[in-house]
Amino acid sequence: MADLNDVSAAEAARRIRSGALSPSNLLAACLKRIDALEPTLKAWVHLDRDAAARVAVQRDIEAREGRFMGPLHGVPVALKDIYDAAGLVTTAGAGPWAHRRATVDAVSVARLRGAGAVILGKVTTTAFAFRDPTETGNPWNPAHTPGGSSSGSGAAVGSRMVPLALGTQTVGSVLRPAAYCGVVGFKPTHGRISAVGVVPLAWSLDHVGVLCRAVEDAALALAIMAGHDAADPHSVPMPLDDYVGSVASPAAPRLGVLRPLVERAEPDNRAQIDSTLKALRAAGAQVEDAPLAASFEGLPEAGDTVMRAEAAAFHRDLYARHAAEYPVHLGERVKDGQAVRAVDYLAAQTHRRAFRADMASVASRFDALVSPTAPGTAPKGLAFTGDASFCAPWSSAGMPSISLPTGLAPSGLPFAIQLTGAPWSEARLFAAAAWCERAIGFKEAPHA
Amino acid sequence: MADLNDVSAAEAARRIRSGALSPSNLLAACLKRIDALEPTLKAWVHLDRDAAARVAVQRDIEAREGRFMGPLHGVPVALKDIYDAAGLVTTAGAGPWAHRRATVDAVSVARLRGAGAVILGKVTTTAFAFRDPTETGNPWNPAHTPGGSSSGSGAAVGSRMVPLALGTQTVGSVLRPAAYCGVVGFKPTHGRISAVGVVPLAWSLDHVGVLCRAVEDAALALAIMAGHDAADPHSVPMPLDDYVGSVASPAAPRLGVLRPLVERAEPDNRAQIDSTLKALRAAGAQVEDAPLAASFEGLPEAGDTVMRAEAAAFHRDLYARHAAEYPVHLGERVKDGQAVRAVDYLAAQTHRRAFRADMASVASRFDALVSPTAPGTAPKGLAFTGDASFCAPWSSAGMPSISLPTGLAPSGLPFAIQLTGAPWSEARLFAAAAWCERAIGFKEAPHA
Repeated sequence: MADLNDVSAAEAARRIRSGALSPSNLLAACLKRIDALEPTLKAWVHLDRDAAARVAVQRDIEAREGRFMGPLHGVPVALKDIYDAAGLVTTAGAGPWAHRRATVDAVSVARLRGAGAVILGKVTTTAFAFRDPTETGNPWNPAHTPGGSSSGSGAAVGSRMVPLALGTQTVGSVLRPAAYCGVVGFKPTHGRISAVGVVPLAWSLDHVGVLCRAVEDAALALAIMAGHDAADPHSVPMPLDDYVGSVASPAAPRLGVLRPLVERAEPDNRAQIDSTLKALRAAGAQVEDAPLAASFEGLPEAGDTVMRAEAAAFHRDLYARHAAEYPVHLGERVKDGQAVRAVDYLAAQTHRRAFRADMASVASRFDALVSPTAPGTAPKGLAFTGDASFCAPWSSAGMPSISLPTGLAPSGLPFAIQLTGAPWSEARLFAAAAWCERAIGFKEAPHA
Repeated sequence: MADLNDVSAAEAARRIRSGALSPSNLLAACLKRIDALEPTLKAWVHLDRDAAARVAVQRDIEAREGRFMGPLHGVPVALKDIYDAAGLVTTAGAGPWAHRRATVDAVSVARLRGAGAVILGKVTTTAFAFRDPTETGNPWNPAHTPGGSSSGSGAAVGSRMVPLALGTQTVGSVLRPAAYCGVVGFKPTHGRISAVGVVPLAWSLDHVGVLCRAVEDAALALAIMAGHDAADPHSVPMPLDDYVGSVASPAAPRLGVLRPLVERAEPDNRAQIDSTLKALRAAGAQVEDAPLAASFEGLPEAGDTVMRAEAAAFHRDLYARHAAEYPVHLGERVKDGQAVRAVDYLAAQTHRRAFRADMASVASRFDALVSPTAPGTAPKGLAFTGDASFCAPWSSAGMPSISLPTGLAPSGLPFAIQLTGAPWSEARLFAAAAWCERAIGFKEAPHA
């Protein structure tokens, strides 16, 4: 069964389509792994075992009849518990005072379901996707954080409980847990995937993203979920590309290394990035330094101002009724956010847009910009979900980013690099990332 | 020469293309009218007489050689003085402390120039397009306001000094002066035309718009200026339609009358609207009542909050240095706006979006929604530019709107109706408006 747990979502879909694998057998492998590891990792909020089993049987029947719902026919998917799935409670990682029973799927969930995915259930999120931690452990070492806020998504995909999970990133909540858990993490350009049906943290910064095992999976997921949604005020009607096709036979990419960011990483991570870049260059990539725009100065504060104000706006009514029940970090943030002045919020938005414009111009000269995903490997303990500051610029800029595992530290925890593309250039980014993924050849799995 | 002054921009372009009219002769007619009326109307800030003459001669030569730059070849256009035109000072209707000498055209101006338009100069705007009045008079009676903030655009087009002028609308600044001056006023869906190079008042609400003599001119202007601009964060990459084609042979439209708004108009205006609707129905239009969404409640306050906050953000630095020089209304507004909290600003944006969604759904069932453009005809005196509250909902909603003159009051001042379409449905709105325009048959011109 180990083989089944280790296959990517795309590979699983191919095997199902060829008749070599049945959705029920794949689901059984997932459930077996979950049963073995869940007591240690605590990745799941609600394992929708019976419904998933029924859907998998349905997918089995269809597959035997040669009918396939779509490119994820029969592939199990986990949802961070801020995504609405019809019939399930969305807890947002908070107490019952914050729960809602969804009657309609989030748009992204509906798209996955329509593509044949088997919704396996809900995985943990920090409360309202902010930084108050969950009890979830890192699959490579449960005494370490899996990162946040998509903690359960990172742990579930990293431990091979499920091949693909939805996460969200407002600051660093998809790519950071992906890095800490040794998996691929991807978020597209802001506005590329509808966020309707996802509990917001800060609209201007919230991205639907995926944690998975291969760049190809991210491309497949984007192909399924991308598209304009007039019901989402941040959705943008930009033309789509052939994301799946982009990873098929990628050329050696031109990489722009953001040296000032690499130099802020911890020494062992910096050394790992340098040796990764050396290997990529040896394999044929063009590796050059790329400039970090002067507008990076003050960007963290600008992003923080936007986030505080928007979180305060979204939580306004709920916080008024349940202030005492709010987890400490989120409560403070919402309270602070109420004091932000609109002129400061708007200046922060202007700053953010200027950085985006500046870096879009830099990014367009490369296939991907390279920076650390996180300062180092997953920190010890579960109280701190880790430093999001390396992911934050690309959340603020709304630029597509992908994290790739590159190897293991002596501690056994995974290292990662972050690749970022120009806005709306996901296809080009995927091609570069798929090429790097092959050149890096990271194959390790945590001890199961 | 009267005939030349009275032709629409589209008709002038046709005559030039057929060889029946030369750009220089058309310009001469415009200049003659300006020379006659400008001392009374005070519509111009900067008449760029020599440059326009040189350009017109160039257009003459090209036309004789059968070369036409575009659909406005040789047609004079006036710019509200918040549009940048390369080489000219943008005064924004304020003192020298606020002036900037533009080195690059606003995107909209560049598009018009590229389509062959002859930029005739700058016309008056209230200071920074807010409500402190100009000295400009109404072409139908100079003791009355031409409306604002596009005061000069209304007066110049209304008095037949120029066939087409750019204006901007943040609350009611294109359609209201168009109504008061007896011309057609149009603003598209928010985000349809780039606002780059236009001095902002409130980004979320600012629309590039036109004042002209015929619906066809508005369609032609939109065809030239519409399109996505990545440099404008509010520009939206929605597909364009065949705007010019939409007015060619329009069918009788289905009109939805927003009765609660009509009932708020002054009695003589209400009677005029009712008799216009009766005539339209007699000519074959389907005229029905359309509901005003419940979210209209509180919308004026929401729009005002957004406007105050964004105006304060834009003016922040300039106001810090020149508070004492600010005109009274704008100064108060900027000062007030600094106190708006981000959570209130964001709640106002949410309200605005809800109203847009609600009314988009209503509007999509009709070819156009009908409401008054203004409470009545242009108020007496120049101190007050008139009540913008009938235009404001469609600025807040970012929905395309057009004002058509319908007749003259006993005072000799023009009446108007406002037609509004669903977001991105300008072609459908133009078709309805062109049909109504023909059925109404308003032909009056002010005494010259």
